[in-house]
Amino acid sequence: MDVLTELIRSLPAGVVVTDATATEKYRYDWSRDASAGTPLAVVRAEDASQVQATVRWAAAHRVPVVPRGAGSGLSGGSSAVDGGIVLSLERMRAIEVDADCQVAVVEPGAYNAEVKAAAAEHGLWYPPDPSSFEICSIGGNVATNAGGLCCVKYGVTTDYVLGLDVVLADGTLVTLGGKRIKDVAGLSLTKLFVGSEGTLGVVTRAILRLVPAQGARSTLVAYFPTAVAAAQAVVAVRSRMRPSMMELMDRWSINCIEDYKPMGLDRDAGALLIAQSDAPGTSRGEEVALMEQACSAAGASEVFVTDDAEEGEMFVAARRAHFHATESRGALLLEDVGVPVPLLPDLLARVAEIAARHRVEIPVVAHAGDGNTHPIVVYPPGDVAAEQRARAAFDEVMAAAIALGGTITGEHGVGRAKKHALPDQLGPDVMALTRKIKDALDPDGIMNPGAVL
Amino acid sequence: MDVLTELIRSLPAGVVVTDATATEKYRYDWSRDASAGTPLAVVRAEDASQVQATVRWAAAHRVPVVPRGAGSGLSGGSSAVDGGIVLSLERMRAIEVDADCQVAVVEPGAYNAEVKAAAAEHGLWYPPDPSSFEICSIGGNVATNAGGLCCVKYGVTTDYVLGLDVVLADGTLVTLGGKRIKDVAGLSLTKLFVGSEGTLGVVTRAILRLVPAQGARSTLVAYFPTAVAAAQAVVAVRSRMRPSMMELMDRWSINCIEDYKPMGLDRDAGALLIAQSDAPGTSRGEEVALMEQACSAAGASEVFVTDDAEEGEMFVAARRAHFHATESRGALLLEDVGVPVPLLPDLLARVAEIAARHRVEIPVVAHAGDGNTHPIVVYPPGDVAAEQRARAAFDEVMAAAIALGGTITGEHGVGRAKKHALPDQLGPDVMALTRKIKDALDPDGIMNPGAVL
Repeated sequence: MDVLTELIRSLPAGVVVTDATATEKYRYDWSRDASAGTPLAVVRAEDASQVQATVRWAAAHRVPVVPRGAGSGLSGGSSAVDGGIVLSLERMRAIEVDADCQVAVVEPGAYNAEVKAAAAEHGLWYPPDPSSFEICSIGGNVATNAGGLCCVKYGVTTDYVLGLDVVLADGTLVTLGGKRIKDVAGLSLTKLFVGSEGTLGVVTRAILRLVPAQGARSTLVAYFPTAVAAAQAVVAVRSRMRPSMMELMDRWSINCIEDYKPMGLDRDAGALLIAQSDAPGTSRGEEVALMEQACSAAGASEVFVTDDAEEGEMFVAARRAHFHATESRGALLLEDVGVPVPLLPDLLARVAEIAARHRVEIPVVAHAGDGNTHPIVVYPPGDVAAEQRARAAFDEVMAAAIALGGTITGEHGVGRAKKHALPDQLGPDVMALTRKIKDALDPDGIMNPGAVL
Repeated sequence: MDVLTELIRSLPAGVVVTDATATEKYRYDWSRDASAGTPLAVVRAEDASQVQATVRWAAAHRVPVVPRGAGSGLSGGSSAVDGGIVLSLERMRAIEVDADCQVAVVEPGAYNAEVKAAAAEHGLWYPPDPSSFEICSIGGNVATNAGGLCCVKYGVTTDYVLGLDVVLADGTLVTLGGKRIKDVAGLSLTKLFVGSEGTLGVVTRAILRLVPAQGARSTLVAYFPTAVAAAQAVVAVRSRMRPSMMELMDRWSINCIEDYKPMGLDRDAGALLIAQSDAPGTSRGEEVALMEQACSAAGASEVFVTDDAEEGEMFVAARRAHFHATESRGALLLEDVGVPVPLLPDLLARVAEIAARHRVEIPVVAHAGDGNTHPIVVYPPGDVAAEQRARAAFDEVMAAAIALGGTITGEHGVGRAKKHALPDQLGPDVMALTRKIKDALDPDGIMNPGAVL
C-alpha cells in the first residue's frame, strides 16, 4: 500500500481529494504565488480528529502540511508545496456563541462575517474586520493575526483570542487558554500560535472574546491635495483621540475604484480620508468636530460628515473594494508595510519616490490610524522588464519601512511573498531565536515549510 | 581566580553585592517564600550590557539567574535560589516618553507609577494598574503580564507591550517589536516573553503603548447582603457594558480594612462593590444608572454614587490597601484564581465552603469584572496544624477554579507558590509543549530555575 493510499483509507470517503482539477484551486491564495507547488492531495477535514490523523500520517512519512482556511491570504502563506498535503479547514465551520461568557467558540473554517453575524444575534460584536471579512476564515485570521479597519480603536485578532485548540506537528491536540478573560498560568502559548502562519501547528478551534455591540457611527470624508497632507491630518487626529476607523486612499487608489465601480469620488484629489467615530452620546459629535478641525488645519480641500449609517457604509465599501479594483488593472505585488504613526507622511513620500523612479504604479490605501499601509505595486502581466522594476520597487518599499522603524507586514503575514525580507527586519539573532522555537515544535519541518522561515 | 571573583572583576565596583546582610532583602518577594534560597551574590545591573555580562558568565558556569524587579511579586517568582545570582534590575529605571508615537520606552526597574506620571506629563496614560502600582516595576509587570483594576475595560500588560529588549539565556541581546502598532513579521515573540516570569530571558527595555489620558470618572459603591449577590450584580453589569473598574470585597475583607485603617465601611455588609465609569460626556451618567439598576436588582442594600474624584479615590484606596490590611492579620497564602465571569458567584460560594470546612479565614477581594479573584488564606504564624489546613484550602481553591473552567492565576504568575498546581490546569501535553520551548531557549535551565516549571 503506498503512502497516500494509507491516508485515504484512514479517513472517511471524500475527505482526501487527489483529482488534479479539483485540487488546482487549493494551490493558491489571492497573492497568486507563481511558485506555488502541486500538492499530493487536499485533505478537507471535517473535525479535529481528522486533522490529527492527517498530521500524524504526515509526521510518520515526513510529508509537508500546508494548512488552509478560505484561501484569501495575500502573502502566499497557504501556497501548496510540491508533494505535500493541503490541509483545508473549509468544512470545519461550527460557531457557538456563549452569550453569558461573551465568547464565540469557532472552528477555523468559519468566516469572520459569520462570527460577527452569530455574535450580533446576542447583541454582541467580534471587532477584527479585515477588508475581506465577508469571505476570510477565522483560522486564517488567527494564523496571520489579522487586523482590519476598526483596529485603530479595537485592536487586532490576538487581542480577542482567549483560547485555541491546536494540533501540533506530531499530531497531539492541545487546548490552550479558555473562556476566562485573564490567565497567566504558564507561558503565553495562545499568543505564540496567533500569527504563526501555520508553521507551528494547525488551529482547530478558537475561543474569541466578544464585546457589546458597536454603537452608532458618524463618518467623516475629507479630500486632500496630497497623500502626505492627508497623512499629516491622521497624525494630528491620532495624537488627540482614537477614531474607530481612519482609512486613507491616494489618488491612484481613488481612480482605481472609480474605474472599477463609479461612485463619484473626486478623481483629482491627492488623497481621501475616511474616518469614523463611534463614541457614545454627545462625545461622538465632539470627536467628529475634532477630526474635521484637524483635516482643515492639514489643508483638506473638502470635508463632509454624515451620521447616516448607509451613506457612511458606501464610502467604507469603496475602500474595501480596493483590492479587487486594483486586481483588474494588472498583476499585483501586495505590500502591507507599517511604520510608527508620525512617520506615515515620510513613508508615503518614499513610496511615491520609489514608484516614480521605477516607473510603476503603486496605489496606496492605508489603515492610516495604525500607520499600516497597503502600497500595491501594479505591472502589466507578461511584461518581464516591468515585472523586474515592480519587484525592485516592492523590495524597496519594505526597506523604506524598515528604515523608518517599521515592519514589512502589519497584518497580512510574511507567507512566502515576504520571506526574503524578514531577516532584514528581524536581524540574525531574532531569526535564530525564531528558528529555535520552530525546531523545538516542528523538528522535521513538516508544518507549512517555506512559509515565514 | 574563583568563579564569583571573575564576575565581580568583570563588572564595575558596587554592581556585585555579596555581603549577606545586604543580600538578605533580595531573597524574597512579598509572598515571603519560606523555601527561598541563599544567593551567591546580587548583581545590581546598571545597563543591558551588564545584564549580558552577568548572563554570559552564568551560562559559562551554569549558575542559576533569578531576575528581580521591585520584589513586590506575590507568587515567589523572584525567590532567590541557593548558589545562584539574583539579577536585580532596580537601578535600570530610565523612562523616555515619545509623545508623537504615543509610547514610553522604559527600563525594567522603573515603577509602574513612574511610567504613568511620565505619560501624564504629555497628556497620555499607561493603563495597567496592579494594586501595587506605586511600588511595582515594569519589568515585573511584563514578567507576570500584570493586570490590575482598570483591566476590565483597558486590558492587561501584554496589550500594551509593543516591543521588548531581552537578554537570552546565552547572553544574546535581542530587540523584538518596536514603535509600530501593528506588526506580524515573524512569530509573536514579544508576546511570548510577556508573562514568561524570567524563565526565558531578562527584559532590559520595554516599549509600552500609551493612550490618551483617562476621562473623568464616576464611582458607584454598593453594599450587598452576600458576596454571591454582589457577584450576580457583576455578571448582570458585564453582560451589558464594560465599566472602567469593578472591584468586589467580601465581609472579611471589609473588616480587615476597617481594622487596618478605619474609613467607615459597613462591617455588617456581606460584600461591597466599587465600580467606575469613565465613559465620555453624558454616557457616563447612563452607564452609572445602568450599574445602579443592576445592583438594586441583585439585592443591594445600599447604593451610593459620586462624581467627586477624591471621594471615589478614597474607596479605591481602601481596596488597594487590602493586601497590607490582611498581612497584619497573620501568615498569608495568596490566591489569584479566575473563572469565566458568569461563574464568579459559584467560585465565591465554593471558596466560602472551603474556608468553613478547613476552619480558616479566606477574605476575598476580586477584580470582579474580569472574573479574577484574590482569596487570601490567613492563618496564625507558627500554628502548624492551621498552616496545614490553610495549605489544603489553598490547593482546593485552585482546584475549584480549574473545575469551573478557570485558572490558578489571573495576573500574579505561577512563580514557585503555584508551580505544583500548574500541571493540573494545563495537563501533560501543554506542560510538554511548555517544556520544549523552555529547553529550546534555555537548554541549561539557568533562567529562574524552579519558577513556573
